[in-house]
Amino acid sequence: MEGPTEIAKNKHFGGFNKRYKYQSRTLGCVTTFTIYFPPAAEKKVPILYYLSGLTCTDENVMQKSGIQRSASEKGLAIVSPDTSPRGLNVQGEADNWDFGVGAGFYLNATQEKWKNWRMYDYITKELPEVLKANFSELDTATASITGHSMGGHGALTLYLQNPGMYKSVSAFAPIANPSVVPWGKKAFSGYLGEDKSAWEAYDATCLVKHYMGETTTEILIDQGDTDGFYKEQLQPENFKKAAEAAGVTVNLRIQSGYDHSYYFVSTFIPDHVSHHAKALLS
Amino acid sequence: MEGPTEIAKNKHFGGFNKRYKYQSRTLGCVTTFTIYFPPAAEKKVPILYYLSGLTCTDENVMQKSGIQRSASEKGLAIVSPDTSPRGLNVQGEADNWDFGVGAGFYLNATQEKWKNWRMYDYITKELPEVLKANFSELDTATASITGHSMGGHGALTLYLQNPGMYKSVSAFAPIANPSVVPWGKKAFSGYLGEDKSAWEAYDATCLVKHYMGETTTEILIDQGDTDGFYKEQLQPENFKKAAEAAGVTVNLRIQSGYDHSYYFVSTFIPDHVSHHAKALLS
Repeated sequence: MEGPTEIAKNKHFGGFNKRYKYQSRTLGCVTTFTIYFPPAAEKKVPILYYLSGLTCTDENVMQKSGIQRSASEKGLAIVSPDTSPRGLNVQGEADNWDFGVGAGFYLNATQEKWKNWRMYDYITKELPEVLKANFSELDTATASITGHSMGGHGALTLYLQNPGMYKSVSAFAPIANPSVVPWGKKAFSGYLGEDKSAWEAYDATCLVKHYMGETTTEILIDQGDTDGFYKEQLQPENFKKAAEAAGVTVNLRIQSGYDHSYYFVSTFIPDHVSHHAKALLS
Repeated sequence: MEGPTEIAKNKHFGGFNKRYKYQSRTLGCVTTFTIYFPPAAEKKVPILYYLSGLTCTDENVMQKSGIQRSASEKGLAIVSPDTSPRGLNVQGEADNWDFGVGAGFYLNATQEKWKNWRMYDYITKELPEVLKANFSELDTATASITGHSMGGHGALTLYLQNPGMYKSVSAFAPIANPSVVPWGKKAFSGYLGEDKSAWEAYDATCLVKHYMGETTTEILIDQGDTDGFYKEQLQPENFKKAAEAAGVTVNLRIQSGYDHSYYFVSTFIPDHVSHHAKALLS
């Protein structure tokens, strides 16, 4: 496999945002990712993965969240992948903003038409290998995960599906119970088919009921109370209730007056980076 | 004159970004501006105007710079206007990214074709009146000004042309001597005609030579040394040299490894907000 090629580089808060592209074997297409490298440290730096929401690429969080300021202070690398395969010309792939391109939902699709939509394998298997093989500055064995909206769903599910892979998890306005909301039903039926038992493996509220990993690390979730998607699409209370029944502590903070935008994300990013730094640097 | 209509509102760092539109009598078109209101204070808050660069609208700085975090901490309002008139259908107005729409250069054009391009009057006269008449939270008599690239040129020239109007000024990678660089020559000949004596009123390096205002307030300028426009288009050293000959102190900081993007701006925004807070809150 050819290593990633650097396609953009910007100094930021003393470190560098570097964007790469390469041919992914999992996705079967060229994909991009961006890494924020904090100012050069003496030893390898831990990783905080940031998974983005519907319609986003790897660039949005790097341009709009200010996450680099906190990552620079704490000495963490930020890794931001894309949200789906692109450029495969699957019929209708770009007809919907909430399905297909930009809407990978961090799962492995089982329906033939969407066979390249394997963001679960890409994020949990291929990407860490690519990082380990190509970036000696990164301590790929020490990682945490966060994300926004669809990416918050991704962060929670990848964490719960892989005990020990991530030291901590947090989420901004996650799609916390996708099986029961319109975005999730559309995505899951399209990618996974109509058998709802297959959906549970990608639903944080279902997964946490059977979670066998360690439970001492609190899960941090922020949710704005004027977010137009809160009640119809996100339902973080369902997740909190199921988690607590399973002995997993969730700090669900309902933030008064905040919406679903990057203005919301950037306001609380410093708290999330601190949350992960505690787990990654201890 | 009809007051501005709120067209967007997002809570951010405890305050609010609010975007407005209204029919400007100076520009002869509908224009937009955005205000960041810091968390509610007991008394009126001072204003820091932020002028944007080529191709930008009032939105870029609000989405990408993180200025609100610092403004929230210090208790300042940020006012971000657009960069030119829009929607007038002047022939060829959108043919160039560095002239016409998105490229008002903060001057009053004298060439008939561009008669609506009066961003100087708009920013220094009409906008403060609109703010005073419509936003009782703002202390419009206590203001400072900053900007990026073309907006850095705008900040420096408006400050020098209007002693006492702004308490302090700073700039990110300003077009500091437009009369002698390609961007400036193109804009000034197009908007002001070929008589170069008319250009001096809008060139910070010329203006500072005759500046009669107070000189105890240091002018802060940041410039990245890997900025591709630094040597050809910006020339901050010309300004510093002319300013110092006139007894005006310029703190020109050459920032190693930084480019012309908002990654550069956002890195040093906290220093600029602190610089202005010192002048505005003393």
